[in-house]
Amino acid sequence: MKLATYKDGSRDGQLVVVSRDLGTAHYATGIASRLQQALDDWNFMSPQLQDLYDQLNAGRARHAFPFDPQQCMAPLPRAYQWADGSAYINHVELVRKARNAEVPASFYTDPLMYQGGSDDFIGPCDDVVVPSEAMGIDFEAEIAVVTGDVKMGASPEQALDGIRLVMLANDVSLRHLIPAELAKGFGFFQSKPATAFSPVAITLDELGDAWQGGRVHLALQSTWNGRKVGMCDAGPEMTFHFGQLIAHIAKTRNVRAGSIVGSGTVSNKDWAKGYSCIAEKRCIETIQDGKPSTEFMKYGDTIRIEMKNKAGQSLFGAIDQTIAAP
Amino acid sequence: MKLATYKDGSRDGQLVVVSRDLGTAHYATGIASRLQQALDDWNFMSPQLQDLYDQLNAGRARHAFPFDPQQCMAPLPRAYQWADGSAYINHVELVRKARNAEVPASFYTDPLMYQGGSDDFIGPCDDVVVPSEAMGIDFEAEIAVVTGDVKMGASPEQALDGIRLVMLANDVSLRHLIPAELAKGFGFFQSKPATAFSPVAITLDELGDAWQGGRVHLALQSTWNGRKVGMCDAGPEMTFHFGQLIAHIAKTRNVRAGSIVGSGTVSNKDWAKGYSCIAEKRCIETIQDGKPSTEFMKYGDTIRIEMKNKAGQSLFGAIDQTIAAP
Repeated sequence: MKLATYKDGSRDGQLVVVSRDLGTAHYATGIASRLQQALDDWNFMSPQLQDLYDQLNAGRARHAFPFDPQQCMAPLPRAYQWADGSAYINHVELVRKARNAEVPASFYTDPLMYQGGSDDFIGPCDDVVVPSEAMGIDFEAEIAVVTGDVKMGASPEQALDGIRLVMLANDVSLRHLIPAELAKGFGFFQSKPATAFSPVAITLDELGDAWQGGRVHLALQSTWNGRKVGMCDAGPEMTFHFGQLIAHIAKTRNVRAGSIVGSGTVSNKDWAKGYSCIAEKRCIETIQDGKPSTEFMKYGDTIRIEMKNKAGQSLFGAIDQTIAAP
Repeated sequence: MKLATYKDGSRDGQLVVVSRDLGTAHYATGIASRLQQALDDWNFMSPQLQDLYDQLNAGRARHAFPFDPQQCMAPLPRAYQWADGSAYINHVELVRKARNAEVPASFYTDPLMYQGGSDDFIGPCDDVVVPSEAMGIDFEAEIAVVTGDVKMGASPEQALDGIRLVMLANDVSLRHLIPAELAKGFGFFQSKPATAFSPVAITLDELGDAWQGGRVHLALQSTWNGRKVGMCDAGPEMTFHFGQLIAHIAKTRNVRAGSIVGSGTVSNKDWAKGYSCIAEKRCIETIQDGKPSTEFMKYGDTIRIEMKNKAGQSLFGAIDQTIAAP
């Protein structure tokens, strides 16, 4: 099924069920008002949400209305955890190669992850507000999962069983603030503004056989100022699958329901597939020409991130944002 | 006023108001059932909670019961943000000095902070469960504040106005896992298990004139296996006050209600005041003797963290935990 959160002026919005074709929606009132509630009590609530979804798809839901992504908050407008991986090692290799550095051997066996801010996500069509263009504004197109409870010490396979929903994410980065923050060793703060998520979060069955081995085997499309810049395959080159990322977090602590775990920038070795963040394009230019020629984003720039299934249908709706001054 | 969260089998527990002397408590039912609710709507709810607090202190609350810290979850059992600083630069200086490294000049003007996991906090008397004693189990006695909404770009002074509550924290660290995680640059995951907080969170007025300049001017007591090892003054040596820490986070994003911001290990230049984490003791030993002689914590070890006002009354109740195997 597909779930979204509609803006209603409150911090957590209103949970809605969205039809498979993203055409209609229905408030989940009577089952749960917020997505976190459903995640907290998934075994009880998800069958009820599924019933409503089935009725909606059959055109039998009584108070259905046209679905409008503009009305969406992030499916979880705020969450108890946002842990983002850097699971496509090609992305790391590119960045390192551009500055003539080696990738440490451990990076191929030990996932690189950072703990992100999760108190203030933005909706799929909300502006990306950045204090200054000089900060090096970049998009990052990613896949993210939402978990149920996963116990401390869970194996990657056990962790896979804890995945409840899948979304797309735009993990905006302020590239010029990153080197100083990374040098401190404590991770990101100022270089990672609020993350945006796709209009809907979907259950794994919606992916059909595109969900294999803890990975989504479909292309992630990134369109910058109306020009398609990325058609990156999210599947085979994901070095660490989502179960491995979740198990990494769960090694010394419990992971609780509603945790969001991201894949990091989707990245392919074949440059013809384009890029899911501008930094990669600049790395390729640096490797080829000695210096980057593509500039980062400016106020007024747009970024659209979407994923379609093999039949060409949008699975999550599109993240479609404009960069804006405060 | 003083607020706590009682265990009731649910994820968020039940909000209770606790008397100033920590002797009695009263469910806040009818006002708010969860602390996050009160923080989400503080201007409306806090006067009602204050009324109940006044009645409780006057012995006029009808359904008061004896307060039992054992029944407490963390005041916020899960939160939308846990951002921990390292605001006592002496702690950083000691760690660096022990390994013959300089403190970068920027560390005196730019706060060192990390984003922590906030989906699974533990209560003040809950066991600290760690997969292995070999991980280098350490306590870290800290002060933490809970914020309301603080807008992107807020100044340190504006950020101070956003502070709603103060607590104590035990930010347990697994020391032997830290070097490898810091080397990756992306911050902590496995080296930071679930953080514990004091039985009660208190409003700033409870601190009286001990709250000055965004700092708590009182001694933080740490007692390890029944032996008092730290009586560290939390006030004058806090290099960055809480407003500065919050403003650091708010530079490129909004900070939303219920965010928890920690001070980092409270640390004094005068070694006679003891230590708020074992790592510091080991640094001092390394500086004096060339190597550390104090071992990290073992299963069964206890740690008690408490802060008293000038009249000798416990302000937050005590964090009182035992290290345990899974």
